[in-house]
Amino acid sequence: MAAIAMRKYCNKFCKNYNSPLVRFHIDILTVPRSLIFHARFLLLGEIQMAEVENNPEKEMITQFHMNAAAGNAAKLSTMLNYSTSLINKMDEKGWTALMYASRNGHFEVTQLLLEKGCDTSISNKSGQTAVDIAEFWGHKHIADLLANPKSDVRSKMWCDGPEENENYFGRTLLNRLSVKRTNSNWIKNKQIQPTTVYIVFSNLSPLVISAKCEDSGKTGIHLCRLQYEDVEQLLVKPEVTSVFLGAELQSETCAKFALGSALAEDDGLIAWFAVNAEFIAPENFRVKYPDCCFLQPLILYLLNFSKEEAGVVAQARSVLAWHSRYKFCPTCGGSTEVQDSGYKKICLQKNCPSLQGIHNTCYPRVDPVVMMLVIHPDGNNCLLGRQKRFPPGMFSCLAGFIEPGETIEDAVRREVAEETAVKVGNVQYVSSQPWPMPSSLMIGCQAIAVTTEIIVDQKEIVDARWFSRQQITEILTHENHPISIPPQQTIAHTLIKKWLVKNAHL
Amino acid sequence: MAAIAMRKYCNKFCKNYNSPLVRFHIDILTVPRSLIFHARFLLLGEIQMAEVENNPEKEMITQFHMNAAAGNAAKLSTMLNYSTSLINKMDEKGWTALMYASRNGHFEVTQLLLEKGCDTSISNKSGQTAVDIAEFWGHKHIADLLANPKSDVRSKMWCDGPEENENYFGRTLLNRLSVKRTNSNWIKNKQIQPTTVYIVFSNLSPLVISAKCEDSGKTGIHLCRLQYEDVEQLLVKPEVTSVFLGAELQSETCAKFALGSALAEDDGLIAWFAVNAEFIAPENFRVKYPDCCFLQPLILYLLNFSKEEAGVVAQARSVLAWHSRYKFCPTCGGSTEVQDSGYKKICLQKNCPSLQGIHNTCYPRVDPVVMMLVIHPDGNNCLLGRQKRFPPGMFSCLAGFIEPGETIEDAVRREVAEETAVKVGNVQYVSSQPWPMPSSLMIGCQAIAVTTEIIVDQKEIVDARWFSRQQITEILTHENHPISIPPQQTIAHTLIKKWLVKNAHL
Ligand SMILES: [Zn+2]
Ligand SMILES: [Zn+2]
Repeated sequence: MAAIAMRKYCNKFCKNYNSPLVRFHIDILTVPRSLIFHARFLLLGEIQMAEVENNPEKEMITQFHMNAAAGNAAKLSTMLNYSTSLINKMDEKGWTALMYASRNGHFEVTQLLLEKGCDTSISNKSGQTAVDIAEFWGHKHIADLLANPKSDVRSKMWCDGPEENENYFGRTLLNRLSVKRTNSNWIKNKQIQPTTVYIVFSNLSPLVISAKCEDSGKTGIHLCRLQYEDVEQLLVKPEVTSVFLGAELQSETCAKFALGSALAEDDGLIAWFAVNAEFIAPENFRVKYPDCCFLQPLILYLLNFSKEEAGVVAQARSVLAWHSRYKFCPTCGGSTEVQDSGYKKICLQKNCPSLQGIHNTCYPRVDPVVMMLVIHPDGNNCLLGRQKRFPPGMFSCLAGFIEPGETIEDAVRREVAEETAVKVGNVQYVSSQPWPMPSSLMIGCQAIAVTTEIIVDQKEIVDARWFSRQQITEILTHENHPISIPPQQTIAHTLIKKWLVKNAHL
Repeated sequence: MAAIAMRKYCNKFCKNYNSPLVRFHIDILTVPRSLIFHARFLLLGEIQMAEVENNPEKEMITQFHMNAAAGNAAKLSTMLNYSTSLINKMDEKGWTALMYASRNGHFEVTQLLLEKGCDTSISNKSGQTAVDIAEFWGHKHIADLLANPKSDVRSKMWCDGPEENENYFGRTLLNRLSVKRTNSNWIKNKQIQPTTVYIVFSNLSPLVISAKCEDSGKTGIHLCRLQYEDVEQLLVKPEVTSVFLGAELQSETCAKFALGSALAEDDGLIAWFAVNAEFIAPENFRVKYPDCCFLQPLILYLLNFSKEEAGVVAQARSVLAWHSRYKFCPTCGGSTEVQDSGYKKICLQKNCPSLQGIHNTCYPRVDPVVMMLVIHPDGNNCLLGRQKRFPPGMFSCLAGFIEPGETIEDAVRREVAEETAVKVGNVQYVSSQPWPMPSSLMIGCQAIAVTTEIIVDQKEIVDARWFSRQQITEILTHENHPISIPPQQTIAHTLIKKWLVKNAHL
């Protein structure tokens, strides 16, 4: 019986999909993604086979879904004209045509289904919407189309790589406009413009106000955005450092319109500067912001900005920290002079070797750090460790500074071996996150262990364990769980969540 | 006629592959890789269909290849017992069973074919061997098995991510053994052991000898490996810096055996140290190495070491460069003291702020740099630029330092926009390379352009152009081509080659 059903299905399959197959008579090496839909399509047909016989409606739905999975917009259109009710029909697993199209990255079909008014909010029996499915499979252009059907995302068609994480500290309000840093006339003019924004730091803590978020009702922290007149007195003091951060991204468009007509110095760009000194009294700014204060304790509250302001804080704090720690020339110990609007510092001693050859002493420092989630060879456990300085019960990804002469991948292997004696094989980059304490670049990776025995070094970390998916889920969902992981603003959190989600259907 | 052939094939397909299909009745979200072989298998069968009818031998070969592509080791074994000559048989495209197994990552089948004595050197009509195919598809365990059939690579089965590049400067002879850096007794003992290796730098140039490679006949450069007695006089001088590099990887196994029996200080590990001073005369070492010299010009010849020694040179030169440029405390300008066998430098002024809180002034600096191949939206052109300092005619990938508070991906977008005005969408990490000039970490990415108009900034670069695949191929293959790209030891070269190969079959 099964064999007969199979044969029937195959006959149908061949008749309908004769021509698409012919299209794929090119070298297999070139068409991996396109092939996946055939596999999907094949499975779909096969799964439904036993069930659809003698049920014309079900058979029609299956046909409709198969065409969506195969990217056949013309057929779908014809079928919809014949029976509009097909559009949101689900199969046994709760999948709709939109989900099949999203699964296989078919842009035209997705567009067609949206035009015909399909429901994008339907979830399948695994609780996934079409957007979830498109995102999971890396079809960013489909996910974007579903999230915002009216925008033209054609130009994003090429962006089919893995989703780029928007980590905290990774987004910003500003274009750095580094070309302007050496243009002292432009900078001087911007410094005194009334639209220019100043943010102020005292001993590397930003001046902030707290405010309730209208949407969430939660209390968030905002940067106090000051004007030239508010900081004029500060800027003349020799111990105060000022850094040009960039211009507001939104102001760029206006600037383009202004270019032809207005004065050269009035380009419409809204410039931002950061100002720091060892100690500044918040009283100075209480006229404008009665409730302002310098952020304390810093580490705890630095994660409470909006995503956009967080990137500005990261940039400003890292550069200002460099100024506060690198006041003298490390090559000769002599005094230095700030250049390039805060992005360069040169030695004032004429014969200093730092002025010759290839050198890095005069530029801000960025310290690359590897942060890795190590996965057990069985795929169902991950390795987390505890540093002595962590809050009680907190475990996180292993991490460490990349050393001179080391690749990212080898730094991951070395750190994991040093801290836990676990050997790591394959290492995959996931995403990166600036971390302004004082100026690190966290490079997040997933690493596959090839051994499982843990020997804690007791120096870098005091504990390390394999945690099962079940345990991590409990830690994430039970508020009073004795074990915790770092908050969602950290790349450690992102790495753990990503692994959990990717494995959720195994 | 075609329809009948199709139907016949489908019948055969269903009978043979009934059960494997049933196995895949789990959620589609979980089985992407496994699915690919079905698609492959399907294609293969389909492609061969028209040709095999009425040709029993061809049909047998096709069956054999289909079983290899599907991972059916048992069937293959039976077929080989019946007809041993099948093992190296090629199809119309020059593919063998080994290639199909390699394509789809079937470890057991690859092992079986190797045991039965298949020929791993056969190339298909595109000039690819089974190893090439396995590497291209990211089946590292298969590639390793083919390259070294006798080693047990079972533990590498999990390593199915994208191939990790072994960039020049990225491989090493040494385990850094960083835990030993603070163990001054162990270090002191190792310094005077006769097995210990010293490499010497004068003004950051390593002491080398050139020698002909027995295999290739080419002249290569080797590090002069000195002993304690050769450098004893140097080490006592105050201006000489010495850094512990690690222990030879090969000596680790011996060390494990020696642990129980021998004295604690005689652990069998062969330690390496790097020594530097502003000026050392090569004459000091001519007794041992009559032809030795300090490498000049450095940049040109630094790329001529073996892959293993290159990593040691990268580590040593970066750390020594840090010592030569960071002699004084940058926070207070005071003098410093070296600790941790060369990996730490602390300020001697008791009240210096550098001794409090989170700081990076006392550790060696590593500068993260993005190096990106920007791909035209059409996928068939790449963007290369020329810096003023480049040799005539040389073009390379765009590159730039990651700034404080910036992600890897945003650094790529900013640098490309600044230098060429081209806008970049998706950015994908490819691989990383230490670059000891003086201490960079090159982070290699592929970036997809969303605009194509080039406006050269004339500051960072003097020229930038889109190059077609055809042009790049000509540049790589014509020795006297007026345009060149950087040599194969650079990550720029790797990025360009990787793109060319990935697109070679489009
Ligand atoms: Zn100096
Ligand atoms: Zn100091």
